[in-house]
Amino acid sequence: MTETINIILAGPRGKMGTEALKLIERTEHFNLVGCIDRKNEGLSIKDIDGLPDIEASIYTNASEAFDRLNADVLIDLTNPEVGYENTRLALLHQVRPVVGTSGFSDEQLTTLEQLSDENNTGIVIAPNFAMGAVLMMRFSKMAAKYFPNVEIIEKHHDQKLDAPSGTAVKTAQMIQESRQAQRQGHPEEKETIDGARGAGFDGFRIHSVRLPGYIAEQEVTFGQTGQTLKITHSSMDRYSFMSGVQFAVEQVVEMDDYVYGLENLME
Amino acid sequence: MTETINIILAGPRGKMGTEALKLIERTEHFNLVGCIDRKNEGLSIKDIDGLPDIEASIYTNASEAFDRLNADVLIDLTNPEVGYENTRLALLHQVRPVVGTSGFSDEQLTTLEQLSDENNTGIVIAPNFAMGAVLMMRFSKMAAKYFPNVEIIEKHHDQKLDAPSGTAVKTAQMIQESRQAQRQGHPEEKETIDGARGAGFDGFRIHSVRLPGYIAEQEVTFGQTGQTLKITHSSMDRYSFMSGVQFAVEQVVEMDDYVYGLENLME
Amino acid sequence: MTETINIILAGPRGKMGTEALKLIERTEHFNLVGCIDRKNEGLSIKDIDGLPDIEASIYTNASEAFDRLNADVLIDLTNPEVGYENTRLALLHQVRPVVGTSGFSDEQLTTLEQLSDENNTGIVIAPNFAMGAVLMMRFSKMAAKYFPNVEIIEKHHDQKLDAPSGTAVKTAQMIQESRQAQRQGHPEEKETIDGARGAGFDGFRIHSVRLPGYIAEQEVTFGQTGQTLKITHSSMDRYSFMSGVQFAVEQVVEMDDYVYGLENLME
Amino acid sequence: MTETINIILAGPRGKMGTEALKLIERTEHFNLVGCIDRKNEGLSIKDIDGLPDIEASIYTNASEAFDRLNADVLIDLTNPEVGYENTRLALLHQVRPVVGTSGFSDEQLTTLEQLSDENNTGIVIAPNFAMGAVLMMRFSKMAAKYFPNVEIIEKHHDQKLDAPSGTAVKTAQMIQESRQAQRQGHPEEKETIDGARGAGFDGFRIHSVRLPGYIAEQEVTFGQTGQTLKITHSSMDRYSFMSGVQFAVEQVVEMDDYVYGLENLME
Repeated sequence: MTETINIILAGPRGKMGTEALKLIERTEHFNLVGCIDRKNEGLSIKDIDGLPDIEASIYTNASEAFDRLNADVLIDLTNPEVGYENTRLALLHQVRPVVGTSGFSDEQLTTLEQLSDENNTGIVIAPNFAMGAVLMMRFSKMAAKYFPNVEIIEKHHDQKLDAPSGTAVKTAQMIQESRQAQRQGHPEEKETIDGARGAGFDGFRIHSVRLPGYIAEQEVTFGQTGQTLKITHSSMDRYSFMSGVQFAVEQVVEMDDYVYGLENLME
Repeated sequence: MTETINIILAGPRGKMGTEALKLIERTEHFNLVGCIDRKNEGLSIKDIDGLPDIEASIYTNASEAFDRLNADVLIDLTNPEVGYENTRLALLHQVRPVVGTSGFSDEQLTTLEQLSDENNTGIVIAPNFAMGAVLMMRFSKMAAKYFPNVEIIEKHHDQKLDAPSGTAVKTAQMIQESRQAQRQGHPEEKETIDGARGAGFDGFRIHSVRLPGYIAEQEVTFGQTGQTLKITHSSMDRYSFMSGVQFAVEQVVEMDDYVYGLENLME
Repeated sequence: MTETINIILAGPRGKMGTEALKLIERTEHFNLVGCIDRKNEGLSIKDIDGLPDIEASIYTNASEAFDRLNADVLIDLTNPEVGYENTRLALLHQVRPVVGTSGFSDEQLTTLEQLSDENNTGIVIAPNFAMGAVLMMRFSKMAAKYFPNVEIIEKHHDQKLDAPSGTAVKTAQMIQESRQAQRQGHPEEKETIDGARGAGFDGFRIHSVRLPGYIAEQEVTFGQTGQTLKITHSSMDRYSFMSGVQFAVEQVVEMDDYVYGLENLME
Repeated sequence: MTETINIILAGPRGKMGTEALKLIERTEHFNLVGCIDRKNEGLSIKDIDGLPDIEASIYTNASEAFDRLNADVLIDLTNPEVGYENTRLALLHQVRPVVGTSGFSDEQLTTLEQLSDENNTGIVIAPNFAMGAVLMMRFSKMAAKYFPNVEIIEKHHDQKLDAPSGTAVKTAQMIQESRQAQRQGHPEEKETIDGARGAGFDGFRIHSVRLPGYIAEQEVTFGQTGQTLKITHSSMDRYSFMSGVQFAVEQVVEMDDYVYGLENLME
């Protein structure tokens, strides 16, 4: 028997927010007690076009929402400016925040950690809610210690502007932390067409594929004589984040402390 | 009930030749009647260290071998110089040759085609015996007509010197024949690390992975909104050629004409 | 310079129909001249909530639509009953139909073929518009001739009821047409847990994976000593059908005859 | 600068032993000081047909080998009977053993642990030297905690008798330890051909593919709404074990204690 978790959601009309409403709707032990939004004061979620048919009052004044509603958790999916204020208020009201942003300043993070401590109130701040991506990066770092020969291939839709992707670069950095540095490949290898061997990063290679039909996929392959080990993560945008949000909410209700990064919630 | 095919093998001590001996040994309707080799005149295959335990006389004089032995097919796995002479003699003796080489000159090919015609004797010359690779290239050419967005990723061991591989370039050329030319990817896409987007070929991309643990693998991926189609071939050197040799032998006994390239035996 | 194709769309409010509206909107040489729908007579597409902002009159009477509008092609994405009547009327008005259904009776198909012939008007009827799936099946049939060892793995979301999928069974049937029948695997192989080796089909195996996160994927793998050849198709529902619709429309305007099945449009 | 490690190898003529000779030959800081074998007393490795050209005396009496040779490490790749005696003697001579076997009895293991302790001599006993397989299983166990929806597909050559493979079952057991038990798939899902959904194990599924061309491959796929995470290990028999042997040798020289299982050497 899982106890019901009472939730305030900030940002219900954004893309992530709308997914979060659906998550709350389909999760039996999640209960939406109210929403914080820029507009629509006094309306209910079910009154807003395009949102799920949930009865939950909308507050434009966050402070009032925390005063009036009996909530366990705040899910904040707004933006760094509004989100910081919402998060600060939540901690003061001993409502545990789950915040999806990478945009807080170091000073803001320090303040939030102090508020968490003073109010004995757990908080999770997550720049990335995709649990599969977090695991892919962690496993890659672990494997690189024993398999220093590695290449990354990331595949995205053909409207993406940057190559390699941010996730590929972050994965490469995490691999770098545990991998014994070396230049891979035959010393005399040569490209008969420029770029064939991909982008160089600390002696290993990253390849970026761009094709319609892909959304976001990454494979990290480690090779040793006679064997290969490959970790592949494939995701479809914001849908994949919701299990991370759910996980964070379920963890934060048991916590009294401050955690930054989903990976630090996963043993 | 398959009829037995009597075979002369030229080049039994080479890497390919040794595999061919094993192929003949394990194929019930294949019968080795003799071998042509540079040395070991008068010995039997079973007398040679490292070769299978088959009773088959070795001839250093090809002409004598064709005179004395009652053979249906010559399998020639030597080199272009010796192989040309063996093949010529085989046709003159109405023994059907299966020759694995890309080294014959146009003049030599013309002569062999004439000899095949004059002697009513089928012949197969195959630069590549890997049936899977031949199919991969053919399917890629077919798909490119309907899916003009394509990228090639080829993966080899890290001792390979050239990138992209010869097979990747040949595949790209075949794709080019049927694909409507276009520059793929977002017009403003940019590499934050040089080479990330791979080697450019007629507007599409080829990526070369080099890792210990791989032997030879290639994936050709076609993308369209909402779907991807991928053709992957993975091979382990010379073992993979033997089914192509077997197929060519079984085809040539039914043929009176000249065929260049395994793809032209496959409908 | 591609000439503009004037299109009537039947069924604009269905899931497929709505995608078709977007397809027409983003394809420069496609022009929507009107729609046939069950309701909304006299309104324009842009007046309907949730549909793209296109100016195109809606007719509830198909005959009237064909009389009044100057169209080259009818795209019918309704249902077999309505669709048959629309298609029949289109042929009588020498408007070329592209119809997405597998629900016409043999008698209906015969009538439509006759009407196509009498009116010198091309028609394409396609039970499946996914070009990648069509190619996957065709390549599988071709490969099976030379690689009789094959297994199919299909992967779908975990809400799918039937295993194996319809596409897997259809692929297996097409493989069966060209593959030399044989029972694969070691004659003494045994399952230590029932079902490990999958579903048997004419001596080969089909495996069905069901996991959240998958939409629809199928890999057909052929094996031979030393090599594997794998054909993988991955699709995301109805988005993947639209390139098939586009292809059929572009083909039908050049045709005077009757074609059933997208594969018969692809050489 | 890595210090040279002096090695005695027991079992140089076995398949694994021959690979170990090649490993030692190509590893700069490994030095073979002698071998223990059932026969060939007094000969050198280079005198034995088919073995590498290394100068290293062969002893049929293990005790004598440990007395006369100045070794840091024993690599034992014999069998449980001979291996136990070699290992025991090595510990008594304070030579650190690396032993590849799963065949020691609990009593033997207890004795070896005591001898290791009494002689302050590190020892590594490894039932499986494939580091990639060890990591695949560990990552699977970690991921299953957060991704309870999982299926295993293992692919082997078609001469394998048992399905599922031992590695697949071991992986399933490790997943079971961390996964919250549940029956996956739709409650009303049904197989239209028996076995399509694979072998059931604690509510999830294992699929066994058997095709020529495969050696040994396993993919463990975790799914969640909107994302999949896949861990794939591919190996080619005994070649893949040698990096595990090398790793164990490099670790054991720094150890004073007893370790069972390669996973316990990997943080």
